[in-house]
This record gives sequence, structure tokens and C-alpha cells, in this order.
Amino acid sequence: MPLNPKRTVAELKELRALTGDENGAQRVAFTPMWAQTRTWLKDKLAGLPVETHTDAAGNFWATLRGESDRALLLGGHMDSVPNGGWLDGCLNVMAAVEVLRHINEQYQGKPPVTVRVVDWADEEGARFGKSLFGSSACSGALDMTEARGLKDKQGVTLPDALKAVGIDFERVKDSGRELKNAAAYLELHIEQGPVLLDLGLPLGAVLGTFGVERHAITFHGQAAHSGSTPMNRRKDAFLAAGKMSQEIYRITEKHGGVCTIGSCTTKPGIVTSVVEECRITLDQRHLDAKALALMLQAARAASERFAQEGNVRVSWERLWQIEPRPFHPELIELCDAAIKETVPQSHRLPSGPLHDAAETCGAGVPTVMMFVQSLHGISHNKIEDTKEEHLELCVTAFDKLASKALAWVAAKK
Amino acid sequence: MPLNPKRTVAELKELRALTGDENGAQRVAFTPMWAQTRTWLKDKLAGLPVETHTDAAGNFWATLRGESDRALLLGGHMDSVPNGGWLDGCLNVMAAVEVLRHINEQYQGKPPVTVRVVDWADEEGARFGKSLFGSSACSGALDMTEARGLKDKQGVTLPDALKAVGIDFERVKDSGRELKNAAAYLELHIEQGPVLLDLGLPLGAVLGTFGVERHAITFHGQAAHSGSTPMNRRKDAFLAAGKMSQEIYRITEKHGGVCTIGSCTTKPGIVTSVVEECRITLDQRHLDAKALALMLQAARAASERFAQEGNVRVSWERLWQIEPRPFHPELIELCDAAIKETVPQSHRLPSGPLHDAAETCGAGVPTVMMFVQSLHGISHNKIEDTKEEHLELCVTAFDKLASKALAWVAAKK
Repeated sequence: MPLNPKRTVAELKELRALTGDENGAQRVAFTPMWAQTRTWLKDKLAGLPVETHTDAAGNFWATLRGESDRALLLGGHMDSVPNGGWLDGCLNVMAAVEVLRHINEQYQGKPPVTVRVVDWADEEGARFGKSLFGSSACSGALDMTEARGLKDKQGVTLPDALKAVGIDFERVKDSGRELKNAAAYLELHIEQGPVLLDLGLPLGAVLGTFGVERHAITFHGQAAHSGSTPMNRRKDAFLAAGKMSQEIYRITEKHGGVCTIGSCTTKPGIVTSVVEECRITLDQRHLDAKALALMLQAARAASERFAQEGNVRVSWERLWQIEPRPFHPELIELCDAAIKETVPQSHRLPSGPLHDAAETCGAGVPTVMMFVQSLHGISHNKIEDTKEEHLELCVTAFDKLASKALAWVAAKK
Repeated sequence: MPLNPKRTVAELKELRALTGDENGAQRVAFTPMWAQTRTWLKDKLAGLPVETHTDAAGNFWATLRGESDRALLLGGHMDSVPNGGWLDGCLNVMAAVEVLRHINEQYQGKPPVTVRVVDWADEEGARFGKSLFGSSACSGALDMTEARGLKDKQGVTLPDALKAVGIDFERVKDSGRELKNAAAYLELHIEQGPVLLDLGLPLGAVLGTFGVERHAITFHGQAAHSGSTPMNRRKDAFLAAGKMSQEIYRITEKHGGVCTIGSCTTKPGIVTSVVEECRITLDQRHLDAKALALMLQAARAASERFAQEGNVRVSWERLWQIEPRPFHPELIELCDAAIKETVPQSHRLPSGPLHDAAETCGAGVPTVMMFVQSLHGISHNKIEDTKEEHLELCVTAFDKLASKALAWVAAKK
């Protein structure tokens, strides 16, 4: 039985009908709908000679034993944000299942290396505001102290929520043993951005996930009456913050990457007062760690210059940070080749959003991702979509990548 | 008995002890503390041959009948914001009381024209968010439809709150008859800004109150993922709004006046998304109506230019507007002369904040104000303060102004 990309599309539609409503996908991790999704996934694997189990962090594994214990991992996550799209991230798991079927067929149940499909737990972090839970537990990167204190909107802690689905929080890093023989990790994902759409290309090879520097920047000025305070006497926190809005575009022109000021709050925030305190958030991303450091340095220097110009103070608070995760150069080449065998042209691009692949990469597993074009460049929304012909093409290209990677892993034995 | 400015300072201190606490003055209009303040004020007038009454809008009047019914009005407001300063605005009423005593003494109870002290009701608008209540009812400018719908934080309507202190909301404009014979209105006030402080001058003659254009400006862009959206694909509402922060300073450099962006809100307002919607408030003030119109025009044009540059839309909503109220040229001259007879130097300046004087001026009563220096340039705060020697000087200068104005009114009989 040959690879059947149409089956993947049909299964994705079946899943949409089962776990979505008029507002979109509702497969939020650790909810009953998510558990139902797992059951459905197991059913899809039922005809295959695979061992399945859930690890200590709630990640689900389906293992097709090969001649070697060295393993090629294919995966992603079935969970979604609330009111999410129909493809993020179940496309990756369902394409992996189709590829697994194909490999099983090709090698009559015994491929040269072990092949495993993984469904990571709670990639989205929708409930506790912390993404990549399952994969970071497995990679060892999870900050246990921080995670222990996480609460959802109802005040339920992450450990209590995990307990309710049979997971012992204190033991989640035991899942790390799953990566013992991991020799490569492949993940297919919708792009979630407009780059391939703008280029008119269906598929892209991903160079890695951006490093992220996320800070809150607060300018401290002085409240003053809007009518009685001469302009040259003001300590206007919004004046300094407003200058940053343009500066981040200059920074990306010089260094590449992306910068975003996503929120701005003002105190006292009334129409009749000069702004005393203005807080903005800055998110900076780059695939190159040195360039990211320069971007951060440039933003700091600019904020200090603007503060001085406006006679205000500035303070910075780091909210979050992650190193860039450049993917494996040889696997990037294989991904590019697989795409070129499927469609006329490939494109190499970084990933702005994080993915579970960043965690496997960080754990030292040779990793690569493939992107398929997103319509509208929009995700985490019910309007998220990709053309069906592109979905079929991506399953085909991902299968070719898996074949190449399997041979690559086998050759390294 | 000569004028006694020290008595005014002593009375202000007495009032502070009676109606203030550790957080500042608490004479919010229509509260029991405010009613107590009125009783205290009446006591201070007890020894004078004046008629007192409260008009249909809750304004309190003390009238010393003169040879003519034509009246010189001296006044201000005893109410304060919550946690307010000790001088805004009771200094004006208490200085007026001292001047009334002096005039009564000078003319042995029968001045050439009638002299009246007025304590306007609810100048601050602290409870219902609408300032100049009593004076605008009296001038006729009060928007009855708008005022009828005003509610405090507890949901009590202005008409109900007035009823509780014996005022019939539907009849407040009957207070207009108080201005029938008004020939001049004089008001002393703390500056509430740093202009006289910076110049090292105790007193200033006020040219009028600024006209105000108050708008909300909303830039409409598109939310997009901070990691996956290339900079040149963004419709960043904060980029356009941020440019306004600098533009308002360029506008005042060109046209004079003052501009303030007092608040900025962002939607969705999260660190990982480009800002879809950014709303800022803009407050523009100028003493000259034409210049104010040009300032508004310049801000609109800039907002449209920034919207176009950033591929976003912009919409404007007028929040409030008032015309400039230039004071009476001859009274400004008299005020300037009175100051120069008291201290070595005078200074003419506009008033950024509004005052009850804007309403008398709008009603066609020849009006002028005198400012006394504010320490820190701060008001509406318990740290609001003015040097005692300056308080004494301002009572002296205000008395000289009243004498001149009385003669001026008398001469026009």
C-alpha cells in the first residue's frame, strides 16, 4: 500500500469534526477532549505492529521496533489552543502516522532503525501559560520550580492538574529516558506566518527556531497637569516609549530578525495628565545568538538615549529568554532535497514561533522541521487554513524526508 | 481696620485642620464635609452687613449692597478633589472674604457698587467627572442632557445627588439671574503649574483660559504573531501611535500652546502579538482659537500620514471641547498694575486648567484672574503648597485689584 496523503487530510477532517466546534479546535491539553483525541489517535495506530505508551510527562509514544535501537523520531502535538485551528499541530502527528504506515509497509514491519511517533503533551501551554511542557520535561529544560507554581485561571496548580490525569509532576523528567536512543527528530508544521504564502511556495525547510529575548521596559517620568505644564518642563514617559516604536524597526533593518512591542500601558493614564509611567513589552527574535545579543544591546542603548533626551528614567525587566536553536545542517539539506523532489522549488526559512523541535534540538537530538504554507499567515484561530493540495504535498515531502533521514540514521550506526 | 493677609493664611490653616486629613483636603462637593465647610464660611461672614443665600445651582452668595446694583463679583470654590491640596480653590474665596471685609471697612458698609463673594458649587467635578457645575449652570453653558445622565462610581445620578442636598436639577439654570447685574468678576488662584516658580515671581496676571480640544485617536492595524510575521508585512498600530508621541512636541513648537497624550491602550496587548488596535488620548490647549484649530488640524494630518506609512487605519473621536476664554483687556491691565504695586515684577500668562472664571467670561461678564506661585508646580495633591509670604502678597495684590475694579465698575455706571 503506497503513501496515502489524501488519507491524512481525511483523518484531519475527521478529527476536526470530533474535537472542534463553531469556534474552532478545542483540544486543550489535559482536558477530556484532549483525552478523547488520544483515544482516537490510538485507534488510528491499531492496525500497526507498534508498541504504545505514555511517558512520565504525559507524552504519547508509538514505537515500531527496527533492526537497531537507534531511533528516528517523528512527531508533534495533538493539543490546540482554545478556539484553535484545525492543523496546528495535529498535522504533524497525523502526517507522522501516515509515514509510519508507509515505513512499516516498505520494511514489512522491521525497518533498519527504530521509528517512533511522539505526541508531545501540552505544547501550547494554553491553560498554564507555559508552552512546550511535555517536550521540555523530556529534554530536561523544564524549570521545575517555576512550573510547580503555575496556576490556571481557576487557581488550579499545574501539579494538581497533572495529578488529575494520572501524571506525577515530581517525576515528569523521568520522560528524558525516551530520548536515550534518539538519532533524529523530524517535525512537520504549518508555517503560521506569511513567508511561503508571499513567495507562492508550498513548502520550506526550517533552519531552526529563533532565539527570543523578552523584556518589559518601563519609563518613569512625572505626572503633571496637561494644561499648566509647559512642554519643556515635562518628564513625559510616553514620549520616550513612543520613540521605541520606530527604533525597533531600525534595529531589525540593521540586524535582521524581528522585534515586537506588543503592549503599552500608561499611568495614571488619564487624558488630563502627562504620563508618569509607561510600560511596554519588547519581544526580540533572531536565529543567530550574536545578532540577538546585538539587537538587545541596541534596544537598551536606545531606551537609555530616549530616557535621557526626555529627562525620564528607564528600567528593564527580563520576562523570558531562550537561545536560538539552529537545526542540524545535514538534516536541513535532506529536508531541502525532499522538498525539491516533491515541488519545483524549496525555500529555507527560520521559525519565529517555538516548537517541540526546539526542545529535541536543545537536548542534542539532530533535528529539522518542514513548513507548509499557511493561508492568511494566521494560526491559533479558527480561520487558520492550508490548501488541501499543499497538505497532500507536505505529507509526500515529509515521507521523502523521513526516508532520507532513516537512511542517514542507519548509515551512522 | 486695615487689610489683614495674615488672617487669610490663618483661616486657611483653620480650614485645613477642619476639613483635611493625613491624605489632604476632603471638601468634595455635596458631601457632609463640604456642607460643614459652607457653615464655617458663613460663620466667617457673620460680622459683616451682607445678605447671604444659596442659589438654584447650589452656589453660595454673600452680597454687600452698594450705592449701585451693578456688582463686582469676587469668588472661587471651596470644594476640593479627594485628597486635594489646602489652597485649591479655597484661597480664592477666603481672599475674597478678606477683601470684602476691607471694602466694607473702607466704605462703611456702603460701597459705590454692590460687592458680592461667590462660592461656586462643585468646581472640581470630582464625583461626577464634570467640572464647573455651579458656574456653568449659572452661565447657562451647562449641557442639561449630558449632566442629567452623569453617575458617580456608586451609580448615583447627579440629579439624585443634588436632590439629597436640596437642589432641584431641572431648575439649576435659574441661578443665571445672579449674573444680571454682574459688572466684573475677579478670581485669585494658585497657578497649579511651574511657570511663576521657574521665573522666580510670586504673582501673575492671567490672560484667559486655554481653549481645549480633547480627542481619542485609535489606530487600527492587524494582530500577527511576533515571531512569524516579517517586519515589512506588519500592520502595527503601536508604530503609528508611537510616532504621535514626538509629533505633538513638533506641533507645539510651531503653534505654541500645549499638547498631551495622557493614555495609551493596546489590543490584544500581549507580548507575542503585533498590536491590532492602539488608542491614545490627545489633549490640546491654546489661548488663541485659530492656533488651536491649526494644532488640531496638524495632529489629524500627522495621524493620517503615520497611518498611511504603517498601512493601518486611523479614527478620531472628540471627547470634549471648549473655546478659549480670553479675559477682559482692561481688567488684565488693572491686574498687572495691582501686582506691580505689590511686588517688583508682574508676568502675564494663560491658564492651562479651567476655572469658574471661564464660565463668567463665557457669560459675558468682564473677567480676570490673578495667579500666585505654586511650589513644585503641583496641585490636586496633598503636597500642593505656596509660600506663606506669597499667600500674603497675593491677598494684598488681589485687594488692590478689587479696589481698581470697583472704581472701574463705578466709572462705567
